[in-house]
Amino acid sequence: MAATTVSNKRVILKRYVTGFPSEEDMDVVTAEAPLMAVPAGSTAVVVKNLYISCDPYMRNRMTRHEVPSYVADYVPGEVLTNYGVMKVISSGHPDFKAGDLVWGITGWEEYTMIDNPESLSKINHPDLPLSYYTGVLGLPGLTAYAGFFEICKPKKGDYVFISAASGAVGQIVGQLAKITGCYVIGSAGSDQKVNLLKTKFGFDDAFNYKKELDLDAALKRHFPEGIDIYFENVGGATLDAVLPNMRLRGRIAACGMISQYNLDNPDGVHNLFYIVTKRLRMEGFLVFDYNKMYHRFEEEMAAYLKERKITYVEDVVVGLDAAPAVLIGLFTGRNVGKQLVAVSQE
Amino acid sequence: MAATTVSNKRVILKRYVTGFPSEEDMDVVTAEAPLMAVPAGSTAVVVKNLYISCDPYMRNRMTRHEVPSYVADYVPGEVLTNYGVMKVISSGHPDFKAGDLVWGITGWEEYTMIDNPESLSKINHPDLPLSYYTGVLGLPGLTAYAGFFEICKPKKGDYVFISAASGAVGQIVGQLAKITGCYVIGSAGSDQKVNLLKTKFGFDDAFNYKKELDLDAALKRHFPEGIDIYFENVGGATLDAVLPNMRLRGRIAACGMISQYNLDNPDGVHNLFYIVTKRLRMEGFLVFDYNKMYHRFEEEMAAYLKERKITYVEDVVVGLDAAPAVLIGLFTGRNVGKQLVAVSQE
Repeated sequence: MAATTVSNKRVILKRYVTGFPSEEDMDVVTAEAPLMAVPAGSTAVVVKNLYISCDPYMRNRMTRHEVPSYVADYVPGEVLTNYGVMKVISSGHPDFKAGDLVWGITGWEEYTMIDNPESLSKINHPDLPLSYYTGVLGLPGLTAYAGFFEICKPKKGDYVFISAASGAVGQIVGQLAKITGCYVIGSAGSDQKVNLLKTKFGFDDAFNYKKELDLDAALKRHFPEGIDIYFENVGGATLDAVLPNMRLRGRIAACGMISQYNLDNPDGVHNLFYIVTKRLRMEGFLVFDYNKMYHRFEEEMAAYLKERKITYVEDVVVGLDAAPAVLIGLFTGRNVGKQLVAVSQE
Repeated sequence: MAATTVSNKRVILKRYVTGFPSEEDMDVVTAEAPLMAVPAGSTAVVVKNLYISCDPYMRNRMTRHEVPSYVADYVPGEVLTNYGVMKVISSGHPDFKAGDLVWGITGWEEYTMIDNPESLSKINHPDLPLSYYTGVLGLPGLTAYAGFFEICKPKKGDYVFISAASGAVGQIVGQLAKITGCYVIGSAGSDQKVNLLKTKFGFDDAFNYKKELDLDAALKRHFPEGIDIYFENVGGATLDAVLPNMRLRGRIAACGMISQYNLDNPDGVHNLFYIVTKRLRMEGFLVFDYNKMYHRFEEEMAAYLKERKITYVEDVVVGLDAAPAVLIGLFTGRNVGKQLVAVSQE
């Protein structure tokens, strides 16, 4: 009997992106799925993709880099890849069997053959929403946890400022900061998001940066004593406004600079001399360097979620057809909370 | 018998400075000296100033700050102050007696009454040039030592780049880096200085940044493997060129940004996203925070100097009349080596 042909909807990069990305930079196509059973002798697994994560760092991968960047560039004509939550449907690997729920790097498509299943992690808390493994229990959660505790070195009573505070990472940083006993203010780009920060995530206060004519004045109003910790997600003008408002020996965890990702010529930051006079430490980090902390983090975060000490807001869009628009929406601030795409029902 | 009146030449700030300082912002005046003997009951000391230090950070003090800066602003009409080497001529303090050689904060004048002699340090190695206590054995030396070892955390084999490398601090950082087993390149603003770096201070190589049309290309040529440690003295365009050339987990010790001190609107730095992708740590520091290390540093540095493992080049100008021009010359790169003024013969 001939193998059944299964179709596989997928999102491919159509061309390298310069400047602001558009839907025309991607294509949603239907191809033939990979084999639904792993060939004999292979240690690959075949997965059905349930949720895929949409993250700002993907923009960087859509540009061709002459000097290799920290992650590989996407290739025109090939499927986009990123972290997702998947169900194993066929396995040649001793650690996995059909039916297992896993998370890790996969394709923006319905089915993916994964040649290196060692990169996948089992889902240890399937009683929590599976989609959380693209966010609060996945890399955004670990990003927040490692960035806040390892880079910011918070102390009780510290004044903490978070930009893009309602996003995938920011909302967790803010809640971890509250658990630590910090005073926490967040900025976001809509009143709805500001409201979320104050009412749902327990920030001490929040403001809509688009409504502030003078960011420096807004920060002085919210931090009359200055800022001990700035969790940097946006870069550019916000960083420039933060620097003069930092306290002595303040710490800036540079997690991302989303305001700069679509600019051919990044904005200039003028106030760096405050790094000297205020003895600031500004340190960049990438979550990939903290993979070893994952298991400890997963247990701690799962406990917080089950005890309702941390809450998580997701922006779930259904179906791969919407994926290109949703990815672009990250850069216009369309999403409220962690953006992801539900690819298939389990 | 009436007390003898002694005249006291002194450099005063005439007016607050904006933009590039000029000689007209200062005045050299002759006033009556303080009493040559400390009044009964006072714990002050009177010192004869032998050498005074000229440092770029003084520019910052010549501007009026609405928000207090990290050091007090100078006051128009009053004498400039900074570190110097002095001889005690009268003391009401039990720790000091006439004839003692000391260093610490004093006035830009011939004689100074110092009300808080606790701020002064004895000179423990008078067999070395006394003027060294304004430089290699004083705060510039401690700046280099603390900044390099405490902030840069060097390892043998690290690739080290130093800007303003022939200056008071840079020349010491470079030699400490060589002692540590690093590969060291410096930039400076004249061929004479570049020659000094290569022949006198033992840098592996050096370049004249004014002759490089493309700083990025110059850095790529000198550091094909990238930079582990950047000792930042200049800021602005140099920092922007350094950032893409840093290696993963590189460290930037932000000691000063002399290129920016006379600008009303500091230059923009555009390449800060490399702090994220390369996981860089950029940390500012001020030497005042490392005073506790001074004694250990003094002994170690004095030993290096006596063993000729470290050499030091000074630019000594004689007489307070030249002091205003000499201070301004720091910002045009006039000085070769550590700038100081010899006020009086001992």
